[in-house]
Amino acid sequence: MTDPICDHSSCELLLLRHGIAEDGEPDAARPLSPAGRHRTTAVLERLQQLGLGVDQLLSSPLLRARQTAELAVAAGLAPGGLTLAEALAPGGAALAWLQGLAAGQALAGQRLALVGHEPDLSGLAAALIGAPAGSLQLKKAGVALLRWQPGAGPARLLLLATPKLLLQ
Amino acid sequence: MTDPICDHSSCELLLLRHGIAEDGEPDAARPLSPAGRHRTTAVLERLQQLGLGVDQLLSSPLLRARQTAELAVAAGLAPGGLTLAEALAPGGAALAWLQGLAAGQALAGQRLALVGHEPDLSGLAAALIGAPAGSLQLKKAGVALLRWQPGAGPARLLLLATPKLLLQ
Repeated sequence: MTDPICDHSSCELLLLRHGIAEDGEPDAARPLSPAGRHRTTAVLERLQQLGLGVDQLLSSPLLRARQTAELAVAAGLAPGGLTLAEALAPGGAALAWLQGLAAGQALAGQRLALVGHEPDLSGLAAALIGAPAGSLQLKKAGVALLRWQPGAGPARLLLLATPKLLLQ
Repeated sequence: MTDPICDHSSCELLLLRHGIAEDGEPDAARPLSPAGRHRTTAVLERLQQLGLGVDQLLSSPLLRARQTAELAVAAGLAPGGLTLAEALAPGGAALAWLQGLAAGQALAGQRLALVGHEPDLSGLAAALIGAPAGSLQLKKAGVALLRWQPGAGPARLLLLATPKLLLQ
């Protein structure tokens, strides 16, 4: 447990959209652009400064997401390193996967970071809080923080921020 | 219109919870504490710096909310001054009032700030995005920004921030 805002029955989910990437093909191999790396790093350092370090870091395997997750490790946000999760790729069944994760291990008191894509990530956040898809949005390198108690009703959204909001 | 992020068919709602207030009775006459005034001012100046000035500023008539709204005017966030709205008091019918406001005047392209209380303000935000009450929360001097097109389905939550997130 990295922070006392996680109580003993719920966990926190830090949803992080990948940073700005280069254009090109194939989509899965598009790297972050130099400007994207720079801004994403600044966001991640700010999250670390805010005390939002995580116990587990799970990322879409697509290059731009994996690089974002690697920057999170480099920023000190995820001392345990990163794990790739196919369910966080575009079109993946992220909600079912997350529910399975919660059923298979005790997440209580933990904070998990999930690095992925739009509209999947904001759709996951919306589903967790009981709202329709499209009722919130995540900018590139933007974040949402939710408190979630698996099996105990809707999650609660605590933060939703753009890079512009996070950085001075 | 104060910012190009408002398009021609939707408006933006900046929900702002009052700052930290003194204890005491009657509840409606509790002023902001000195620390509350200080922190609220810093938040409002940051919102102004982010380009989140508003076309209309509507506030609960309770002293701590009205003082928060007055600080918003002083920070340059609301050049048009403030209007008190009974529906923003605790237990007020804020959603119905807001729908009436949208029916009575053209809000398209405008940004409105609503200053009020919890759990009313987060309940209003939740209702607007189609989520259950309690699915998000606003800290004191915290803000939520929504894009809303009256009569066209759920609003979209763009930002949800605590003072800690807004201030370095």
